This record gives sequence, structure tokens and C-alpha cells, in this order.
Amino acid sequence: MHLLTYCIDGDETPRLGARIGADRVADLTALASAAGVQLPGSVLELIRAGKPALSTARQLLGDAPDTRPLAEVSLRAPLRPGKIVGVGLNYVEHVDESHRSLDTDRELPDRPVLFGKPATAVTGHGQPILHNADLTKQLDWECELAVVIGEPARRVSEQDAWRHVFGYSIVNDVSARDQRRSGQWFFSKGQDSYAPFGPVVVTADEIPDPQRLDLSLRVNGELRQNSNTRHMLFGIARLIADISAGMTLEPGDVIATGSPSGVGAGMVPPQFLQPGDLVEATIERIGTLANPVIDAR
Amino acid sequence: MHLLTYCIDGDETPRLGARIGADRVADLTALASAAGVQLPGSVLELIRAGKPALSTARQLLGDAPDTRPLAEVSLRAPLRPGKIVGVGLNYVEHVDESHRSLDTDRELPDRPVLFGKPATAVTGHGQPILHNADLTKQLDWECELAVVIGEPARRVSEQDAWRHVFGYSIVNDVSARDQRRSGQWFFSKGQDSYAPFGPVVVTADEIPDPQRLDLSLRVNGELRQNSNTRHMLFGIARLIADISAGMTLEPGDVIATGSPSGVGAGMVPPQFLQPGDLVEATIERIGTLANPVIDAR
Repeated sequence: MHLLTYCIDGDETPRLGARIGADRVADLTALASAAGVQLPGSVLELIRAGKPALSTARQLLGDAPDTRPLAEVSLRAPLRPGKIVGVGLNYVEHVDESHRSLDTDRELPDRPVLFGKPATAVTGHGQPILHNADLTKQLDWECELAVVIGEPARRVSEQDAWRHVFGYSIVNDVSARDQRRSGQWFFSKGQDSYAPFGPVVVTADEIPDPQRLDLSLRVNGELRQNSNTRHMLFGIARLIADISAGMTLEPGDVIATGSPSGVGAGMVPPQFLQPGDLVEATIERIGTLANPVIDAR
Repeated sequence: MHLLTYCIDGDETPRLGARIGADRVADLTALASAAGVQLPGSVLELIRAGKPALSTARQLLGDAPDTRPLAEVSLRAPLRPGKIVGVGLNYVEHVDESHRSLDTDRELPDRPVLFGKPATAVTGHGQPILHNADLTKQLDWECELAVVIGEPARRVSEQDAWRHVFGYSIVNDVSARDQRRSGQWFFSKGQDSYAPFGPVVVTADEIPDPQRLDLSLRVNGELRQNSNTRHMLFGIARLIADISAGMTLEPGDVIATGSPSGVGAGMVPPQFLQPGDLVEATIERIGTLANPVIDAR
């Protein structure tokens, strides 16, 4: 299933839906109501409710349900995570470009480099990335595979890690490179709208090998990043084991698994996002997360 | 009011209470129910409900209510924040000891150094700080004034900042110094139990000058930190203005305003927390946040 959260026609009530094919959406709540069955009302509640709720949703979508064009609705982030754990320097070539352009270490890290992005940074597909020129002249992009946690994970082994994954999505780890504070990334990566997330959460059963996904990013149609998740330095299972050794991962928490090379800071000369730009982050089997950049001074 | 969250006798249902005097607690929910008035059921909901709910709570406590000894109940963190924004290097002498012992910059920062702690790190007064010797040999303490946000704050001026403050509490910004990752503090400061928070939230009206509060910390009764919030490099209003310039602060969010000098890493020789230790963080007009350290391997 490709779960999503959407609104219609100026009504800001978020609705629980599923993407059908490439470009249609089914209203899961309406389907449950028509069938007279109980179903949680949001993606997060669906995750928390566990397998029985998920199989109810699957059944509801089984019989060619009513759908409407995705283009007619307005997407929101699929859910608001309790926490987003970001992973820095997790693709070899990005470690190199980051060392050249951002003063990070030259050597590959020997354990995952972790940072946090707050839930207030989350925004959905189609919603704007806020460019405030009073605060930054170096707004940058990073296309990342997002791992959405299903079962609570505390001190989980690499072997057991997969059973704690609910599904996968895309995070654009937007960064104001000039807003690092004594090297800390929280404010540079944690501002409002700096975590575009979506367009859907694809349940884990539909992505049997998440370490073999092409991922790419375009700015105004021009290819900037192009890699595959097999090039991660620390794979998903290792990340879950490493993080959960100290930090409980809860249902709906998101791990942003790191960016491949091709960020704006690494270009010669460097190039950054400007109002009017359109950023499209694409991951195989998930889709494209597109966000316009607007002037938000 | 000194708001708190507590449990009684093995019943894990959190209750909304108020500290009365130094050592008694009143059950606000029971008082509301007896008086036949509506009152939100938790500190976070009370904050979100705004001034009318707060004045109802105040009235309920006005007429010598029934109380029981604090010693008979078990405190929890007053609330689970949406985010905790930590401030690093915000007391001059701590900048110096941190430069000597932790490789941070020698110069005073020219803008607040911000980092995040996740909500899963929060624990309450009396609850254990988890010491995992497999992960850290450098578990350290930091007594900090916690600012609890009331009204949402986005691009707030220093002048207007105060009206967004709900109240004050204490955070012990526990850190595993050897778990920084390429300099990032998130995992070193964000593990489960690394944010003891409480014992109460004191409403802002009771602390007219939060920049004149003595704060101190003891380990096993020995004084380790002893300063006053007037020595902050960036005061509370400046912090709210600075953070909210890019990051919306929501009701219940917490700013941990930084630690004075006297951390374990700065001692000669360095000294760190061990299982069996008791850490007591005290701030004038708020109280003492005490947490035992336990072996959690």
C-alpha cells in the first residue's frame, strides 16, 4: 500500500488515503465507513494499530474501490513523526564533497553520524520550502530514503531490525549551510519546511530490497543527485541497531538515511536554492516528492 | 502554580497535580470534578487551553484544597515536549572549560549554539538515568533552566518573547561525551533518560525575573555546579527570538537554556557519573530535580 494524507478543496481536515496506480487516490476512511468496519483515521494511528488494521485497509482496497485523480487533492506529509533521526555522511562520495566544501572530516565515519530534525520542520509534497534570505544564502537540498518505524525499537539487533520497519518514504533534508552553530546542524537543518516528507509511505512488503533503490534529485528539471541506496555506508539494519542501542525508536519515527553526493554546496561554483526553484526528489518504487521554493522573508 | 504530573501506588495513569508548599500535592482533576468544572487532564493540555483554563486551575487551588504528601506519590516529567531545543556554550566559564576538555571553540559564540534532544530522552524526578557502560564511559551532567513555551512563537521579537513563555522548570542535560558523532551532539545528548525534566513547571507569573535565579547541581551531595542565570551569554528573550526566527516553537516545547561551568568533563581529573550516583539539580523558586544513576547494561 501507498499510504498518504490529503486535503480537498480548501477543507483543511486531513484525510487518510491510499495512492492507487500512479495518479489516483482512494479515501480509506470513506471505504471503511461504507463497509461498516473500523479503521484508524490517520497514517500514524494506522501504524500504531499494527497488523490487523493494516490488513483491514488492504482488504478495503482489494475490490476496485472508488478513486479520484491525485491532481484534484492536496497532499500533506503522511504523518508528523515523534522524531526524525538524520544520518550525515552516509554515502562515500558525499563524505568527500562535504569535506571539500563544508569542513567535515575527510575520513569515512566509523559509526553513523546522527542528528535531529524537529517535527515542526515537516512539510508535504507540493508545499513550499521557505527561503528566508535574511537568514540564509546557502539553502541546499539532500534526497534521502526515509525509513518509517512500525514496532517500537529498543536495543534491537541488526538481524531483528527489519521487523521494526513499517515502510519507506522520501525526505528532502533541506539545509541552510550557513546556519550551522559551532558545527551543530540542528538549526541549519531543523527550520520550518526543511523536512519535505512524502508523497506516500510505501509499506515494507512492497519494497523487498530497500538497499537497491535508485534515488535522484532535480532542481528545475536538472539532475543534481543520482545514486542508489546500495551505496549507503551504514545500511538500514545497522542504523536501526545503532540508534536503538541508546534511543528508543517509536511507531511513526523516521530515519532519514543520508544523502548521496550532488548537493549544491559541493558544486563548482556552489549553487543554492532560490525562490522560484522547484526541487524534485525521486526514489524508485516510492515516487517523487516535489516542492517549490518561495520567498518567505 | 507549580504544576506536576504524578502517579500513585503502581497505577501508571498520569495525573495532573499542583505542588502545594514544599512537599504536598493537590489532585487538580479531582478538585475540578468535585467542583463540577471542566479542566484539561494534563499539563500539556492545560498549556494548550490557554489562560481561562489556567485561571480555573488557580481558583480550584485557592480554598485550601485537600492535599497529600509529595513523598507518597511518584512524579513523572510534567509533560512530553514536542521538541527540546538545547543551547550549548551559553555560560562564559562553561565555554572555557568546554574548550579545554571537549574541543569546542575557545571564542564565545556570536549566536546561540542550538541542538535537539528528542522527547524519548525525557524522564521525571526520581526516575533513573540509564548508565550503559557498553556505550559510554563519560556520562556527564548539566543543570539548566528549562523554558516551557505557552503561546506558539514564530518570528517573535525579543520584546514580545516573554508573552510566549508559559513557565519554567529544570532540565538535566545529560551527555555521553564519548558518543558525539563527527562533532554532532544528538546521540550523545539524546539517549533514553538523558533529559530528566521537572519536578514541576512553575508558571511565569511566579518568577518575575528568570534571569536572576541561582542554579546548582550536586553529585552524591557534593557541589559540582553553582551559578546564576544572569550569567547566560544569550538571555531567554534573545533565545526565543533567535530560535523562532526559523523554527516555530509550539506550546509545551522546551528550551534548555544551557549549563554553567562545573561539568564532569571539565574537572581535573575528569569525573563522570557511575551507577549508584545521585544527581540533584536545583534552581531557585523551582526546586530540586533528583535522579539516581543505574546500571542499564
